[in-house]
Amino acid sequence: MNTFGQLLRVTTFGESHGPAIGCVVDGCPPGIALAPEDFAHDLARRASGKSRHTSARHEADAVEILSGVYQGRSTGTPIALLVRNVDARSKDYARIAEQFRPGHADYTYWHKYGIRDPRGGGRSSARETTMRVAAAVIAKKWLAQRHGVRVRGHLAQIGEVLPRGHDWDAVEANPFFWPDAAQVPELENYMDALRKSGDSVGARVAVVADGVPPGWGEPVYGKLDAEIAAAMMSINAVKGVEIGAGFASVVQRGSAHRDQATPEGFLSNHAGGILGGISSGQQVVVSVAFKPTSSLRLPARGVDVHGAAVEVVTTGRHDPCVGLRAVPICEAMLALVLMDQALRHRAQCGDVGAVAPRLPPQA
Amino acid sequence: MNTFGQLLRVTTFGESHGPAIGCVVDGCPPGIALAPEDFAHDLARRASGKSRHTSARHEADAVEILSGVYQGRSTGTPIALLVRNVDARSKDYARIAEQFRPGHADYTYWHKYGIRDPRGGGRSSARETTMRVAAAVIAKKWLAQRHGVRVRGHLAQIGEVLPRGHDWDAVEANPFFWPDAAQVPELENYMDALRKSGDSVGARVAVVADGVPPGWGEPVYGKLDAEIAAAMMSINAVKGVEIGAGFASVVQRGSAHRDQATPEGFLSNHAGGILGGISSGQQVVVSVAFKPTSSLRLPARGVDVHGAAVEVVTTGRHDPCVGLRAVPICEAMLALVLMDQALRHRAQCGDVGAVAPRLPPQA
Amino acid sequence: MNTFGQLLRVTTFGESHGPAIGCVVDGCPPGIALAPEDFAHDLARRASGKSRHTSARHEADAVEILSGVYQGRSTGTPIALLVRNVDARSKDYARIAEQFRPGHADYTYWHKYGIRDPRGGGRSSARETTMRVAAAVIAKKWLAQRHGVRVRGHLAQIGEVLPRGHDWDAVEANPFFWPDAAQVPELENYMDALRKSGDSVGARVAVVADGVPPGWGEPVYGKLDAEIAAAMMSINAVKGVEIGAGFASVVQRGSAHRDQATPEGFLSNHAGGILGGISSGQQVVVSVAFKPTSSLRLPARGVDVHGAAVEVVTTGRHDPCVGLRAVPICEAMLALVLMDQALRHRAQCGDVGAVAPRLPPQA
Amino acid sequence: MNTFGQLLRVTTFGESHGPAIGCVVDGCPPGIALAPEDFAHDLARRASGKSRHTSARHEADAVEILSGVYQGRSTGTPIALLVRNVDARSKDYARIAEQFRPGHADYTYWHKYGIRDPRGGGRSSARETTMRVAAAVIAKKWLAQRHGVRVRGHLAQIGEVLPRGHDWDAVEANPFFWPDAAQVPELENYMDALRKSGDSVGARVAVVADGVPPGWGEPVYGKLDAEIAAAMMSINAVKGVEIGAGFASVVQRGSAHRDQATPEGFLSNHAGGILGGISSGQQVVVSVAFKPTSSLRLPARGVDVHGAAVEVVTTGRHDPCVGLRAVPICEAMLALVLMDQALRHRAQCGDVGAVAPRLPPQA
Repeated sequence: MNTFGQLLRVTTFGESHGPAIGCVVDGCPPGIALAPEDFAHDLARRASGKSRHTSARHEADAVEILSGVYQGRSTGTPIALLVRNVDARSKDYARIAEQFRPGHADYTYWHKYGIRDPRGGGRSSARETTMRVAAAVIAKKWLAQRHGVRVRGHLAQIGEVLPRGHDWDAVEANPFFWPDAAQVPELENYMDALRKSGDSVGARVAVVADGVPPGWGEPVYGKLDAEIAAAMMSINAVKGVEIGAGFASVVQRGSAHRDQATPEGFLSNHAGGILGGISSGQQVVVSVAFKPTSSLRLPARGVDVHGAAVEVVTTGRHDPCVGLRAVPICEAMLALVLMDQALRHRAQCGDVGAVAPRLPPQA
Repeated sequence: MNTFGQLLRVTTFGESHGPAIGCVVDGCPPGIALAPEDFAHDLARRASGKSRHTSARHEADAVEILSGVYQGRSTGTPIALLVRNVDARSKDYARIAEQFRPGHADYTYWHKYGIRDPRGGGRSSARETTMRVAAAVIAKKWLAQRHGVRVRGHLAQIGEVLPRGHDWDAVEANPFFWPDAAQVPELENYMDALRKSGDSVGARVAVVADGVPPGWGEPVYGKLDAEIAAAMMSINAVKGVEIGAGFASVVQRGSAHRDQATPEGFLSNHAGGILGGISSGQQVVVSVAFKPTSSLRLPARGVDVHGAAVEVVTTGRHDPCVGLRAVPICEAMLALVLMDQALRHRAQCGDVGAVAPRLPPQA
Repeated sequence: MNTFGQLLRVTTFGESHGPAIGCVVDGCPPGIALAPEDFAHDLARRASGKSRHTSARHEADAVEILSGVYQGRSTGTPIALLVRNVDARSKDYARIAEQFRPGHADYTYWHKYGIRDPRGGGRSSARETTMRVAAAVIAKKWLAQRHGVRVRGHLAQIGEVLPRGHDWDAVEANPFFWPDAAQVPELENYMDALRKSGDSVGARVAVVADGVPPGWGEPVYGKLDAEIAAAMMSINAVKGVEIGAGFASVVQRGSAHRDQATPEGFLSNHAGGILGGISSGQQVVVSVAFKPTSSLRLPARGVDVHGAAVEVVTTGRHDPCVGLRAVPICEAMLALVLMDQALRHRAQCGDVGAVAPRLPPQA
Repeated sequence: MNTFGQLLRVTTFGESHGPAIGCVVDGCPPGIALAPEDFAHDLARRASGKSRHTSARHEADAVEILSGVYQGRSTGTPIALLVRNVDARSKDYARIAEQFRPGHADYTYWHKYGIRDPRGGGRSSARETTMRVAAAVIAKKWLAQRHGVRVRGHLAQIGEVLPRGHDWDAVEANPFFWPDAAQVPELENYMDALRKSGDSVGARVAVVADGVPPGWGEPVYGKLDAEIAAAMMSINAVKGVEIGAGFASVVQRGSAHRDQATPEGFLSNHAGGILGGISSGQQVVVSVAFKPTSSLRLPARGVDVHGAAVEVVTTGRHDPCVGLRAVPICEAMLALVLMDQALRHRAQCGDVGAVAPRLPPQA
């Protein structure tokens, strides 16, 4: 199933080293201003080659709008976006086509489909997330213009390293999406050492949405938090998702966890902006765990398609920390979920008027 | 949206204190043996009143099969299950109908719908999960009989308390679904002290599936792990979901995380049995965080529907740890996801023959 | 698949002679006034036993509202409706369980599922349509109150007999839903003769919707006419569906078919109110063909489950013209499609303002 | 909604005069042999410019496979197909952009979306059907290879002209898809006279599927006939759909309509191969009504976006009978429905063994 969303439906296609990747965004409201250059910023943020700490592939990632836009505005018909794969190196895949790389989807695709495209990971490559970011450019625009919603994220952990300070302005000013500029030299050294060792490390990404009005989310199987969880877990290398206090709530007392409120606003936000699967008007807070890259030049024990033992060594470009590129992708998935839920809310409850005073997000 | 699943579609309905709750299970293969008494075991496991540590409501929870079964076997038509609410106490809801309880869905339902059923939490009550457990009885049967898959779970943490040992036999023999029988007296004391304090605490549940063949799961937006994440996060009070190593993978090195393999089997299972969104044939491993109950007799600051400050005190029966009843619910959601994915796999890849030697789950 | 609709989702369940039939209506906007007695009128219109020309089953068809309504108003949560089967005669089905009745779904259910409930046709019985009519009571109310849309129908042909006049007031005043009161005696005689002969005959139903605003319908695979076609063809015994001029347009010239327009309104309505899959603001016009009942006391050649030739004779109550009861069912399906499309339109285009003068339906 | 199908999901995009049209075929089983040249035959059959009786646009319609195929076989990942619009004439659309052409979707798109792409009809153009035909090439291959199912069609009426004979070999040998070669000169004259008159005429298309096994189709809202009806009605210019005897069944007696059976096979096929929404193993028989083209050089009365009366005259290329190109499109929709239903059947009932002797389609 390569379609995401119920009313804002994003269908992606394409393999890492095939001729192109692309997506079709269906259900988009008409009248949204849209131009090819709108996609450049977020695709550049996601693109590899941003720094020496991410892999060297030089993806042009120029987005062609194939449909759904007339005279610079969306028409309500499906918006197809296309990105040609211009840097898909041709090389001999014969050897790796027969091997199952540990930690990769090789073995599982093989058993599911009986066939797989081994070139650059084929469909299982994170290359696919390019189109999520592209599609979410539309969602971010609509959320901002129509509802004043802002989605943004930052890296919240690399291996053992945690941010000491928090400054949103710093995040976009360093290649690590790191919220404390003072730590950047430390991270540079950390990553250099890691690369030298031939190993990789995991990471944690934080994404938040401000300005979400109360009422978005559909109980009981289309809950806002449930769909965020699925969206994040569908990103390559993700192993965990938290909303608000997340796993920390296991050791909390109820008297501490429950977010009390006064007419001046909520007194805390352990819920992460979602109660009963519906947004509360507070900041939506999401945390995502990324596993370390499995493609390493350190040899590993594996098997081949015939069941024989092989030694697997990955050569070529690979990020020592996939999380470094993950912030825009997590933002994208959160924006897509929010816009889809906003449309669903409008469908069912579009004419519900003001029913009670709206609490400020924070007292 | 009150329907779960793509091909095995479970639609639930009902409010906590309405006349009945129920579900419709659509897409179920024909020929499965099914009788009303099949539901008793898991509903009893989920039911409150199991011990003095869970709330005192005495739910009969007798399941009536309304359709889809003929001469004791499923016919392929929708299976409707009905449970009457026999213990819905009538009392005066006028006061709480006007208050928003902190940590509850009162405020968000009100803002979404402009109306809410305040009796016992209405639709947002965990009462709804009864029907998940009932529907999953069918899924568990089918998975076991047709694929030899077994789904089970246990409590893995209560507040600060972690299991010291692990014994599946112990799990069903104590009211905490706790895997170490020796710790049960300690937990009894822990819960008694908690109840006396008027406070509550969070919990962590572990669920696993053994026997899942490689190949279940649909990339890229219907990934097995993504749908498990959504399923778990859709359960009341859940704030986090992990697959395999989960958040622990953030600090792992890639050389440690990636599960190497030999012809004798996988050498570890940090992936939790899922790679690229598709099952690998290893044990599927899921961990779920439950927040502490928000309904406490300790007063909290809140607001009412008019925006005025109120003091909220919850009287009546409430579990000091909602996680105590959550194990059968988490099992249910995992079983439903697996059966749905099994059917989807059969639809697309049903005629893919053996393509490579299948690795043993564990070397 | 027992769910109808995208945003207003109606899931029906139940067999003709099982304990109950019912439905779950999900996605309904909150705030709609709803009481059990609202269902009586349309269920009575659909019910058999209305006249001596329809079968003698006395269905009580009392609707119980199980969920989704609080203090007489919909809450936005799923509305479950239940009707107990009180007149399911117990008799010996052993013989017919082994036979495939010509013109019935016996043979096809058997081959699909390998099992079937033979009691009264099981799931394939028109008994299921009771719940469509019940669900559509909600849709009709919402369409009328919120958009001023009115859905109604009449019988437009019985065998060779066509209406001579057209009077909406007559339709509800005779057991044939016939638009010309003067023809009723003729139809009585026609049906009496038919019943005596042991044979049955087909019928044609016309359904229209007035007041539908321009803009409902989703190109290109959720077109309003396409979904109407599916909805009607999903009714038991339907073999054909037309929109507007329908099959008559095959012999029309384009200069005659295309509906010209002036500022005072459209000059004709061959399109049946739908252009490009989207409503035009004219009357939506649908025509539906019903085959003659296959259950006859005239013997027919058939086979049994062992492949042997058998003579099939149907005893017991059966309508000589299923079309006589079909008007409320066709109305129901049109109302459900319209409400679903209205919600979908609101989701995507809810904030599109007035863009051009709206033409009157008819000049 | 621009996606068709439940398990075989075809998402199309593109406007008539935009840069490209395309589709994404998701859910396709792996292992199907597929090459760009496979699409040439059916696209040529559909293409305009086939004869002087269809419009002069020279569409190259070269299909590029963007994804989902590796080494000539489908991999189970989404198959994206792209066709560039090479003959989209640039001209001044300013005038027609302000006019609503009678019989076209101009007015309805405008009112739905508040914006429309007027170039060549934009999204509402039959140009979109190119991608249905392309997608169905895959479905036809799979149906033939895996199940021996063959889908084909012919023109069954042009205006008042009906076929006198029936010869499948003749159908592909003339530009009218006409089953009686002897009538071709007559049709040539008919069309020439029509073109000279500046008018257009309707048509009827017959499509059949042979070899469909009993058991495909999902009661009660995913019935095979219901989905065929929706599929056909979603084609531009279609106003009616019949299965089997269709509207003729209105005047039939039940004793004549019901298809009796003997161990040697069914004795008739008024049902058109579908009973209770499920295939019976007989030939699936569908009839589709196409309205006459609305674009005529004969002037018509219309209005513009400001509500003023205008005289609408269409210049440029237009088919005097859209039905002439419709046969491959109807075939395509039938093939897509059948493959989708086949996959759905396999999912739910894939392990139902032989339960009864299968009747030959025809005695």
